[in-house]
Order: sequence, then structure tokens, then C-alpha cells
Amino acid sequence: SEVKKIAVIAGDGIGPEVVAEAEKVLKRTEEIFGYTFETTHALFGGIAIDQKGTPLPEETLEVCQNADAVLLGAVGGPKWDNNPKELRPETGLLGIRKALGLFSNLRPAVVFDCLKDASTLKPEVLEGTDLMVVRELTGGIYFGDKLRRQGEHGEEAVDTCVYNVTEVERIVRQAFEIAQKRKKRLASVDKANVLETSRLWREVVNRVAPDYPDVEVEHVLVDNCAMQLLRRPASFDVIVTENMFGDILSDEAAMLTGSIGMLSSASLGEGSFGLYEPVHGSAPDIAGQGAANPIATILSVALMFRMTFGYEDAADAIEKAVAKVLDEGHRTSDIAVDKSQAISTSAMGDLIVKNM
Amino acid sequence: SEVKKIAVIAGDGIGPEVVAEAEKVLKRTEEIFGYTFETTHALFGGIAIDQKGTPLPEETLEVCQNADAVLLGAVGGPKWDNNPKELRPETGLLGIRKALGLFSNLRPAVVFDCLKDASTLKPEVLEGTDLMVVRELTGGIYFGDKLRRQGEHGEEAVDTCVYNVTEVERIVRQAFEIAQKRKKRLASVDKANVLETSRLWREVVNRVAPDYPDVEVEHVLVDNCAMQLLRRPASFDVIVTENMFGDILSDEAAMLTGSIGMLSSASLGEGSFGLYEPVHGSAPDIAGQGAANPIATILSVALMFRMTFGYEDAADAIEKAVAKVLDEGHRTSDIAVDKSQAISTSAMGDLIVKNM
Ligand SMILES: CC(C)[C@H](C(=O)O)[C@@H](O)C(=O)O
Ligand SMILES: CC(C)[C@H](C(=O)O)[C@@H](O)C(=O)O
Repeated sequence: SEVKKIAVIAGDGIGPEVVAEAEKVLKRTEEIFGYTFETTHALFGGIAIDQKGTPLPEETLEVCQNADAVLLGAVGGPKWDNNPKELRPETGLLGIRKALGLFSNLRPAVVFDCLKDASTLKPEVLEGTDLMVVRELTGGIYFGDKLRRQGEHGEEAVDTCVYNVTEVERIVRQAFEIAQKRKKRLASVDKANVLETSRLWREVVNRVAPDYPDVEVEHVLVDNCAMQLLRRPASFDVIVTENMFGDILSDEAAMLTGSIGMLSSASLGEGSFGLYEPVHGSAPDIAGQGAANPIATILSVALMFRMTFGYEDAADAIEKAVAKVLDEGHRTSDIAVDKSQAISTSAMGDLIVKNM
Repeated sequence: SEVKKIAVIAGDGIGPEVVAEAEKVLKRTEEIFGYTFETTHALFGGIAIDQKGTPLPEETLEVCQNADAVLLGAVGGPKWDNNPKELRPETGLLGIRKALGLFSNLRPAVVFDCLKDASTLKPEVLEGTDLMVVRELTGGIYFGDKLRRQGEHGEEAVDTCVYNVTEVERIVRQAFEIAQKRKKRLASVDKANVLETSRLWREVVNRVAPDYPDVEVEHVLVDNCAMQLLRRPASFDVIVTENMFGDILSDEAAMLTGSIGMLSSASLGEGSFGLYEPVHGSAPDIAGQGAANPIATILSVALMFRMTFGYEDAADAIEKAVAKVLDEGHRTSDIAVDKSQAISTSAMGDLIVKNM
């Protein structure tokens, strides 16, 4: 079969450790299923700042642009937190999203059975929670004009939030399509009682909704959504929202599942290209200790197989292997009840590979 | 003693019912403590739209401006949800905040002992949660320029988020002062890795922090804060943040306590003037049934006594009466475990008055 090119960006903190385990899974997939992957490693984030003087080197962007998909570990850390804007890992993250046209971020928030008790929510409230946040990723206040100026009352700062109908329509239609393949419920989140961009957003949702008659739509104000996620998480299916609200709500949703070390995400553009990464961050405090949980990154590979390559068989094999290893009671320290029984990052990776 | 003028705005939905109970408390306070209140009722919100053709009639604003404090029930309801912007209750709310210069919204989120189990969070996580969100209320994206225009990619909408150092400094200093009277911890929430207004915000916090050496400050990114509120709610003391983030986080914080029917809030300007209201909304579904819980509104009166009038004795009397009535097991239906035992709005009000 065709060679699939994967740009591999290990990044900072625990990034290299979890990505190494995901690469074992790629290799095993080649052996079992006969697929062929060509991986190219590229520098990105803090390590790129240190080695190349910029978080997103030109050659990294080229590697990504020539690839079919990108696998990302994690970026950032306190070392770069006080750098000027151009020399910060986040600037690279925003830059790569824009440059690759990744306008849609999909963040499934599911409760892993073995982690039910890890949530701070009561198990009976959490029961059945399986939602997906579809976040617009290349527009809104993240990318609008920013400035400093002298005003009447001293120095002032300005951020601009802009959305056009084309941008809103493509993400909203994608969310409807995702809802059609799931529980057929879509919550569109906005602040239409205050923001003009939200009013435009809501108009677009209402205009395209008749094209998806099988999907039940509700409009939820962002403040109310922050509450309802806590009150009735299991009642949500797909949530679609703009960039800033999506940043906040997807983190809230991920945390309430109690499974944050296990959640994967996809950032998609036009066509099948996508960037896949764990929801968790670079966890600099435990970096280099072999203590990180590689499952979210490994599941990101499964998501890549499903969404970009259409390799359902391999995706299934990975997901089943993860489930089996967890069922057998193996845990990394983040999810271990008895920390003394925790296994290392690479031991977890090896077990998953063995069970594929 | 001096006559205190209170503008009373019952508003919509359950507003009139809960405000009526709060007025009983005002009357009883006069009898017990010898204070004198002059209350003036004014139309606001949906009812003002219906009767006066505008959510914030000129005479209502005048009544408020001539008062020492405002007591507000709740505004809004589905009846007005599809109205044009000028004819929506929220427009009145934003208008009154701006016109009265109420730049600071204080939202205590505490867990009432008798309601511990009402939260969707586990009791052991919730234990000791007692935080206060200080939200900037008259700036940011709520009040910046908004527009529609034709762009390259079709119609587009723009919202502008603006903050100047003066605005940020006054709310930040207020938050520091509040923290000094509490547990001396301040979490300043922003999105400084993306927004220019957040970078200005953070600079101001860092600049004024040395004036409050007894307060421990941390900067928390808004997405992380949405997570930490779920993970370690009890570790927060005072949270200060800008308007939009405050809208989302204060609702999340209120909901996680499980006590939303009991929480009061204050919106303050320069000097001692303030507007006091329950955190809950107008609950149109139960309006007119005598089923609403008047406690949040009654506690808003206590907050008014404390913050605007300095009537600590009367505030204490109200809070103790509420605690006693709850301890005795009396419940309105929203907080009753056995709904058949629930008492009415006015029965609850009467019991609190009797116990003052
Ligand atoms: C690091 C930051 C710029 C980024 C964002 O806000 O988008 C992160 O929080 C995320 O959600 O991927
Ligand atoms: C009704 C709405 C405009 C308002 C706000 O967003 O400020 C409300 O949510 C609140 O928090 O008081």
C-alpha cells in the first residue's frame, strides 16, 4: 500500500517520551497490517527556540506541509514563559495552526471506565458522559488585530474578535456532520446576548440547520454552558463553538471526565490532513522520569488512522489493546491508585504494542 | 438614624416573588435595629419593555441614581429572547451597569453545609470551598465597538476588547483589598499567552502587587482556571478577572458549589453605592407559583447592609436567621430532598423574618 508520511514533533517536557511510545505503535502497525509510514522528525516549540531561535522553524513547517499528518507530543514549559512573544512556544502553536489551515479542533471528552473514580464529579453524574467539543481554531480573538496605544486613561490594549460567515459555516457544517455520526445532538455555544460575532454565529447555525434535519440543535450561552457541563455532562453530544470559548470549555469538559491523561485530539483543515496530539500538556515537572502516561498520544495515533488515513482496522487494534492493558490493571502513576504499583512510560507502551 | 434610599427592582419571572420576601426583611430590620429605609420601586427588564417600550426607562435610572443602593430580583425570559437588541432585557442590564459605573461584580461562591450533597462534585473535593470571583463589569469585549461589514469572505462581524490601565488597576486593587480581608490569596486570571489585553492586565497586577505584600498572587490562564476550579476548588480564595472570563468562571464556580439558589452578588462602583442581586436567574418556568427560593435575594440584602451601609449587626442577624431556618430543616423545593415537604417562597421569607 501507499506510503503515508507522518511529521513527528516530539516537542518539550514529556513530549519526547510519549511520542517515542506512539512510534512503537506505528512500527507495530506496519508489521501487523502491512501499512507503510515514513516518519520525519522536526523541531518545534521550546526546543526549537533553544536550537533554532524560533518556535516554528521554516523547515518544520515544510516537513508538516509535505506530510499527510502530524503527530505532536506537547510544547511549552516555564523556561520559555517569560520570553518575548516571538520566542514563546505558544506563538509556534498559533503559527502552525494558521499556516496549516487547521481550522477545526476536535476534543473528545469521554470517561474511561477504569478512571470513573478519578473525576472530581460524582460517578452517577458522570455516567454516560461522551461528548466532543468542536472548536474553531484559526479565527476569532486569537488572530484578530492586537495593539497598544495611549488613550484618555493611560496606556490601553486592544484585541479584535472577527468572524466571517465562510469561517463559521465550515466549522458549523463539520460539527453537524460529526453529530450525524454520533448521538445527533448539537449544542452551539455563543454569547449572542452580548457579542456581534456570536449573533453572526447563531444566524449561520440557524441557516444551515435545515440541511441536517436529523440533528437536534440547541443554542447555549457560554456562561450557561460552563454550568451545564457540570450539572448534566452526559446530556451533551457535540458542542460547537468559537476559538476562545472552545479553549475554556474543552478544558473544562476534559477535566470533568477525570481522564485527562488519556484524551486525544485532532486539529483538521480542508481535506484529510490533520494534526494529532494528546489533550494534556508538556508536564515539565515529571519530564525525563519515565513517569508520563503515553496513552493519550497512542490514542492520538488511532485517531489519525481513523480520520486521516481511514485505517479503521489499525485504529481498532490500538484502542482494543489500550482497553485490554487497562482492564488487566496496568497503570502509569498518573492513573494508579497505588502509586507503588505504577509502571513506566515505556513499559506501558510495550504492553500496548504487545496486545495489538 | 439617617434614611437609606433603596431602589427596588423586582424585574421578571420569579423576581417579584423573591424581592417581596427581601422587603419583609427590610421592614423587620427597621423594627429591630431602628434603621430607616425608603424604598422606591422601578420597572426594569422585560416588564419595562412591555410597559414602557425600553428595558431601562429613564425614570428607573433616575431612581437608582438617587438611591444609596439598588436591590434587583432578576430579569429576562423567553418572551423577549427574540426581540431586537434595544428591546432585550440584557441590554438594560448592560446599560444600568455602565450608567451607574458598576465596574466590579463580586460573586461569592460558598458551599452551604446543608447543601453539600446538592453539588455534582464529590463532597471531599468541595470541602472548604469558599471563594470570591471579582469580575470587571464595565469594560472589555462587552462594551467595545461592534460592527457588521462585508469582507472578502462574505459578511463579517467584529467585537473589540479594550482595557486601559486605569480600568484594570481599580478592579485589581479592589481584589487585592478583598483578599487582604479573606485568606490573602489572589488568582489573577487571563490569557496572556494570546491576548494583548491580558498582557496589559498581567503587567498591572505585577506592578501593584508589591503594595499588598501580605497577599500571595498567582497568574492563572483562563483555560487552566476552568480546570482547576474543578480539580481543587477549595484552594482558591479571590479570583480577579476581566468581564468575559468572569462571566464564564463565576457561573462555573457558582454551579460547582451546588448552592446556586442561595448565592448573592454585589456590583459596586466608586464609593459605597452598590447593586445587589441573587446569582440565579428569573426562572420563568416556576414563576408565579410560590416555589422560588428567596434566600439568595435575602442574603443580597445582608450583603448590601455590610458593603454599602455598614450595618454589620443587621447583616449578621439576617445571615444567622437564614442559617437557623435551614438548620431546622426548612427547605424550598429547589433545595428540598423530599419535594413534598417543601415550603413556599413566602413561608420561607416569613420564617427568616421570625428568626431575625
Ligand atoms: C497554548 C495556547 C495558545 C493554546 C490555546 O489557547 O489554543 C492551548 O491552550 C490549547 O488549547 O491548545
Ligand atoms: C445577561 C448577560 C448579559 C449577563 C452578562 O453576561 O453579564 C449575565 O450573564 C450576568 O452574568 O450577569
